[in-house]
Amino acid sequence: MEPSNPFFKKIENIELSKICTELNVENVYEDCKIEGINNLESANKTEISFFNSLKYSKLLNTTKSKFIITKKKYKNLILKFCSPIIVDDILKSVGIVTSLFYPDSLNDSIDFNVNKKNQEKYNNVKFGNNVLLGNNITIGTNCSIGHNTIIESNVKIGNDCIIGNNVIIKNSLIGNSVIILDGSIIGKKGFGFFPDKDKNFRYPHVGMVIIGNNVEIGSNNNIDRGSISNTIIGDNTFLDNMVHIAHNVKIGKNCIITAQVGFAGSSSIGNQVSIGGQAGISGHLNIGNNVQIGGGSGVIKNIPDNSKVMGYPAKNIRSFLKDNN
Amino acid sequence: MEPSNPFFKKIENIELSKICTELNVENVYEDCKIEGINNLESANKTEISFFNSLKYSKLLNTTKSKFIITKKKYKNLILKFCSPIIVDDILKSVGIVTSLFYPDSLNDSIDFNVNKKNQEKYNNVKFGNNVLLGNNITIGTNCSIGHNTIIESNVKIGNDCIIGNNVIIKNSLIGNSVIILDGSIIGKKGFGFFPDKDKNFRYPHVGMVIIGNNVEIGSNNNIDRGSISNTIIGDNTFLDNMVHIAHNVKIGKNCIITAQVGFAGSSSIGNQVSIGGQAGISGHLNIGNNVQIGGGSGVIKNIPDNSKVMGYPAKNIRSFLKDNN
Amino acid sequence: MEPSNPFFKKIENIELSKICTELNVENVYEDCKIEGINNLESANKTEISFFNSLKYSKLLNTTKSKFIITKKKYKNLILKFCSPIIVDDILKSVGIVTSLFYPDSLNDSIDFNVNKKNQEKYNNVKFGNNVLLGNNITIGTNCSIGHNTIIESNVKIGNDCIIGNNVIIKNSLIGNSVIILDGSIIGKKGFGFFPDKDKNFRYPHVGMVIIGNNVEIGSNNNIDRGSISNTIIGDNTFLDNMVHIAHNVKIGKNCIITAQVGFAGSSSIGNQVSIGGQAGISGHLNIGNNVQIGGGSGVIKNIPDNSKVMGYPAKNIRSFLKDNN
Repeated sequence: MEPSNPFFKKIENIELSKICTELNVENVYEDCKIEGINNLESANKTEISFFNSLKYSKLLNTTKSKFIITKKKYKNLILKFCSPIIVDDILKSVGIVTSLFYPDSLNDSIDFNVNKKNQEKYNNVKFGNNVLLGNNITIGTNCSIGHNTIIESNVKIGNDCIIGNNVIIKNSLIGNSVIILDGSIIGKKGFGFFPDKDKNFRYPHVGMVIIGNNVEIGSNNNIDRGSISNTIIGDNTFLDNMVHIAHNVKIGKNCIITAQVGFAGSSSIGNQVSIGGQAGISGHLNIGNNVQIGGGSGVIKNIPDNSKVMGYPAKNIRSFLKDNN
Repeated sequence: MEPSNPFFKKIENIELSKICTELNVENVYEDCKIEGINNLESANKTEISFFNSLKYSKLLNTTKSKFIITKKKYKNLILKFCSPIIVDDILKSVGIVTSLFYPDSLNDSIDFNVNKKNQEKYNNVKFGNNVLLGNNITIGTNCSIGHNTIIESNVKIGNDCIIGNNVIIKNSLIGNSVIILDGSIIGKKGFGFFPDKDKNFRYPHVGMVIIGNNVEIGSNNNIDRGSISNTIIGDNTFLDNMVHIAHNVKIGKNCIITAQVGFAGSSSIGNQVSIGGQAGISGHLNIGNNVQIGGGSGVIKNIPDNSKVMGYPAKNIRSFLKDNN
Repeated sequence: MEPSNPFFKKIENIELSKICTELNVENVYEDCKIEGINNLESANKTEISFFNSLKYSKLLNTTKSKFIITKKKYKNLILKFCSPIIVDDILKSVGIVTSLFYPDSLNDSIDFNVNKKNQEKYNNVKFGNNVLLGNNITIGTNCSIGHNTIIESNVKIGNDCIIGNNVIIKNSLIGNSVIILDGSIIGKKGFGFFPDKDKNFRYPHVGMVIIGNNVEIGSNNNIDRGSISNTIIGDNTFLDNMVHIAHNVKIGKNCIITAQVGFAGSSSIGNQVSIGGQAGISGHLNIGNNVQIGGGSGVIKNIPDNSKVMGYPAKNIRSFLKDNN
């Protein structure tokens, strides 16, 4: 199970009536204190939850949550088990409630607590010029941190890591023997919002970036932290330059991700997956283990284990090469 | 109408004979002082202009310009209205004359006037470590400027903006409530030049980058300033990471531009346009309002309002998905 | 012929028995000192070499090398000329031996020798704020080096160059009148390794980046140095923003490389080649002279001189446009 983010300060509890006001709906229940928001499976009895698809119907039977954000068409279904809170846009409402509990998660304000002096706390770490370190940082032994690199708050780095020059990291857990090359940006908020004609509503990002052991991250990579879940890169996976990894993406172990590859949000990639340069992976997909994806491919469907695909949209590599002979 | 760039120092006037010498043509007219270069529509009677396509023929009737750079085949047409200056390469000649009037516009020399001390001028702006500020900068109230960020000369930033770490900005007008994330480079000269076997001739860039209100610019974006017109990003448009926007591109309001998208020069994008990851938009195109462009698409033709396209080259999304089923 | 890298410190000699131990094979020959590793053509009699394809058979006749790393199936062939050293994975073994001779070439440890004080050595060079310079650097006259730029060890820069802000350079030879724009990273090690389930084995990178005269490198480019050969960019070639150039790529003169183009490793590009935005060039290809590659193309085959191609995979541009009409 994913570690939950120890980083974002959570409001202890919020009254149900206040939540309803923020969601712009009438509270039809007796007022009470709500202590958080969570999915149906994980929520406890003091947490609010949400229901946005019939494929989760079974969980209504077992969820401990009492109040469920949902829309009108699921109202009667929910009423059999819990108390529905009816909204127009479920996911936006989840975002609003999440941001009530984690008010710092909406924007990435600059971390003005970083300081060159903080370096004195670390033995056996070599720091370049002009390195800035925030609060709540752990750095293991035998690490090097390059020039002009900024490690903002809430970062844990293992042993024997090399963090290059001009790197920016926040809200991340990094394993041992990890190399992060120059100019990479790890752990900033993802590109998530609900469009609104005058002013878009930004989705909160309370997730982290979790990087395993022996990972190499190339130059100028952008790895965004998760919104509610985490962004994860497995052990011994290597990334080339200018790779973009959106929020909530999970990449397995021993993968090879070549330059300029992009991952849209929330996709899962198995182990021993190799992806050629400039390929793109759409959002919310499952890519199996031992998959090979040719350079330049555009993947828009799930891919089973042991497949070799190429093309836009990606298909079996033999078909692609035959069709284009 | 676009604001004209208040930034580049313009030579007050140049003699026609000098201009002809630089263009390597003989001056067949009485010498006089020319005060600038402009298109047929906007030129006043002291400015030189140019004619490079019959689609602008009507403007010859009304232009106030007296001297028109053109090529031999349009000579007799021009002679009915004004005095032609005959050259081999019209656009290169326009570039040469523009650079005569704006000698600083060819290269982006480093701004050595930036200074940490300049921060003292700003109340109600929070500065990170090692921020460098040039001359001719305005910053509104309640802004944050991240660590190691360089704001070179000729930048105006509105109120309530967050400019991240390692950002570089020059020659730009930025609205209110704009967020620019780490590592983005805004306002450098575009990729414009006339190839020449020994030494390419760089096209002058006297335009700006103009960013509206409530805009978000992701990490590691590159937004080049305009050559003669401006590069514009409309209100409430959000850009993901590693987006490249070439010179003179205009993007409307409320657009959603996902990661690694690239825009070639001088294209215009309407309002409420969404573009999926890694899509590319060729140069000099018109994309209408409410257009949806799928991830990975290569757009090489104009797209009318309310279209949904995908593919390379991009076509109707239903056709694309059907053809590739 | 390519200049050989003067930068990496080479171990003077290593005993054959030690090399065999590192390759995990038995040494069946009398022990002796080996002074380096080289290809069949260039190796001298004190250097070890390797044979991995029958297309190099003729060179066995003329090579001066005595010991040849190869695999079992070539054993008898090699025995006619030299002494084979039989391994399972020839290229990995070459990597292992190379890294024995160049122990600093495997990783890009941070250069902690850089120093602001080093600026005092240079007359007629303008330095921005917070510029860091390593050892073994030459900078010609009339150069500008932008703010926060890091020039690590082993860099030679010609005259009249402009190096932008936030640039990082190492292990590179740069000609005269070169412009490198903000945020580019030049000369770091390439993305080369042999996958291994627990811990990938990194390939050594003893090559350089060699940039000719009058070259322009855009913003946020990544140009990796060569592994055994060099990465080369010819005179008067211009690169737009966010271009990725992998190890050992050779680009000719007068080329135009538009934004977001990517080159996989070891491809050769001729002179006067223009490549549209977001195109990708696979590894180990030969692209001729005067070739035009359309934006978004995916090139997976060699391209002869004077061709115009487009598409994914790239083909004759007329066919592409006709097929997609």
